Amino acid sequence: MLSLFLLAAAPLAQAAAVPSPADPVAADWRAVPDDELLVMTLANGRQVVIRLAPAMAPAHVGNVRTLARTRWWDGASVYRVQENWVTQWGDATEKKPLPAGVTDRPAAEFEIAAFRPAVRMAKADGYSTASGITADGWPVATNGTQAWVTHCYGMVGVARDTLPSTGSGAELFTPIGQSARRLDRNYTVVGRIVEGMQYLSALPRSEAAMGMYATAGERVPIVSVRLASDLPAGERPHFQYRSADNPRFAAAVTRRENPEAPMVSLGGASVCDVLPAVRRAP
Amino acid sequence: MLSLFLLAAAPLAQAAAVPSPADPVAADWRAVPDDELLVMTLANGRQVVIRLAPAMAPAHVGNVRTLARTRWWDGASVYRVQENWVTQWGDATEKKPLPAGVTDRPAAEFEIAAFRPAVRMAKADGYSTASGITADGWPVATNGTQAWVTHCYGMVGVARDTLPSTGSGAELFTPIGQSARRLDRNYTVVGRIVEGMQYLSALPRSEAAMGMYATAGERVPIVSVRLASDLPAGERPHFQYRSADNPRFAAAVTRRENPEAPMVSLGGASVCDVLPAVRRAP
Repeated sequence: MLSLFLLAAAPLAQAAAVPSPADPVAADWRAVPDDELLVMTLANGRQVVIRLAPAMAPAHVGNVRTLARTRWWDGASVYRVQENWVTQWGDATEKKPLPAGVTDRPAAEFEIAAFRPAVRMAKADGYSTASGITADGWPVATNGTQAWVTHCYGMVGVARDTLPSTGSGAELFTPIGQSARRLDRNYTVVGRIVEGMQYLSALPRSEAAMGMYATAGERVPIVSVRLASDLPAGERPHFQYRSADNPRFAAAVTRRENPEAPMVSLGGASVCDVLPAVRRAP
Repeated sequence: MLSLFLLAAAPLAQAAAVPSPADPVAADWRAVPDDELLVMTLANGRQVVIRLAPAMAPAHVGNVRTLARTRWWDGASVYRVQENWVTQWGDATEKKPLPAGVTDRPAAEFEIAAFRPAVRMAKADGYSTASGITADGWPVATNGTQAWVTHCYGMVGVARDTLPSTGSGAELFTPIGQSARRLDRNYTVVGRIVEGMQYLSALPRSEAAMGMYATAGERVPIVSVRLASDLPAGERPHFQYRSADNPRFAAAVTRRENPEAPMVSLGGASVCDVLPAVRRAP
């Protein structure tokens, strides 16, 4: 009675033992630019690496870069962990002045200019009429008119006050349970956690209002947040994403939507279930 | 810059400050029978309460009840925690003999007899053509021919070996990340965690194969698993679920699918995003 799962949890990445048309080739792996990687170091050396999405939310990512360069988050904390919802970090007091160069209320970037996936999901979902993965690996959706980046597990969103606030990017969150797709088109997505998600998803939940840690002692101190491009060369991590604009990735999505027997195929999947792998450069 | 979320994470439950047609009335709350509640006590007194679904998987729930009554899980452990996938518990050695009365390989209960939701979701999703919530609160879906209970976050599934095994119910898992909808129709759902989910979702992730804890020391000991009906009256918890066969719940689902301004409405949601509240009896 070996209780393993046939379906591994891993993203669409690793080559199987038997080569498959869904396996990536070397050229499918593309470098994440150093200034699109954010390295957040928590207490006890736990490191969370975020891939930024400047093409999707340029103003908010611009703020995030300035906040990192001015070391604004150093000494901040992870201050909110709400069960089956989000982990949130930044300045728990929400009173620390923003540094020069950060726009307090940028124009909304809840949506993106156009729906241009490289691979489309076979079926619509409850939140959109179509969805897919862009060539550079971002999950996107549309209602036929507007398009947006989806709030999958592990994506990084910009916390904000009630509308019309868009948030500055100083307070960030990531969904840690069922996806937070109902935030789509209402919050700005600035990136995706590509390493160290477990340091945010496995934190103790708070039962206080909104999952805010009730005491300072519960918070996880943030030691530093840096763009990889601002780190000394020797400390700089290098990541690659699996690109989606090739038949291998399309085959991987199709296989996820139509798994082989003995699995029963559902003929579809959620865009959040096919996020392309991101790895450290070998 | 108060970075709160407009949308609370709570299930569709609590009455708002201003009464709404989506608020439950007293009669909407119905008792969960004592023999449909499973109380799992972990080390350090952490308690996880599971609502069983005997109507959905009678043979496997029958096994689960026998395993509890014979105290088979006492001294077992939570032995697998895989990031963005599942937490799994039972006998880590997978060698402990099953007690008399437990069928090692019951007939498959991956599907249910019919798709009979009390409330239907407005839109299809990637895994089914229709979905909804049954009168007694279970998330179900259909492809037009077969019907099944969905693998939402916090549901309890039966781990198994490769097909045609159905698992006995001795090894159980719950999705702890993005939902595990791609297991629909391939695994048996026996229940839902209705209290204490954080004691399974916030455990340290294992980086060993399949997220199995690599050492015995990592495992979380299970002190006991009991049906509430087998506990002394004074220790017996009493739970109620919010029923779905009433216009209040239907209004709550519609509101989740079409939130009011200033939120932008997506006109839909996932069935996993509208699970009815379950609470301790007041």
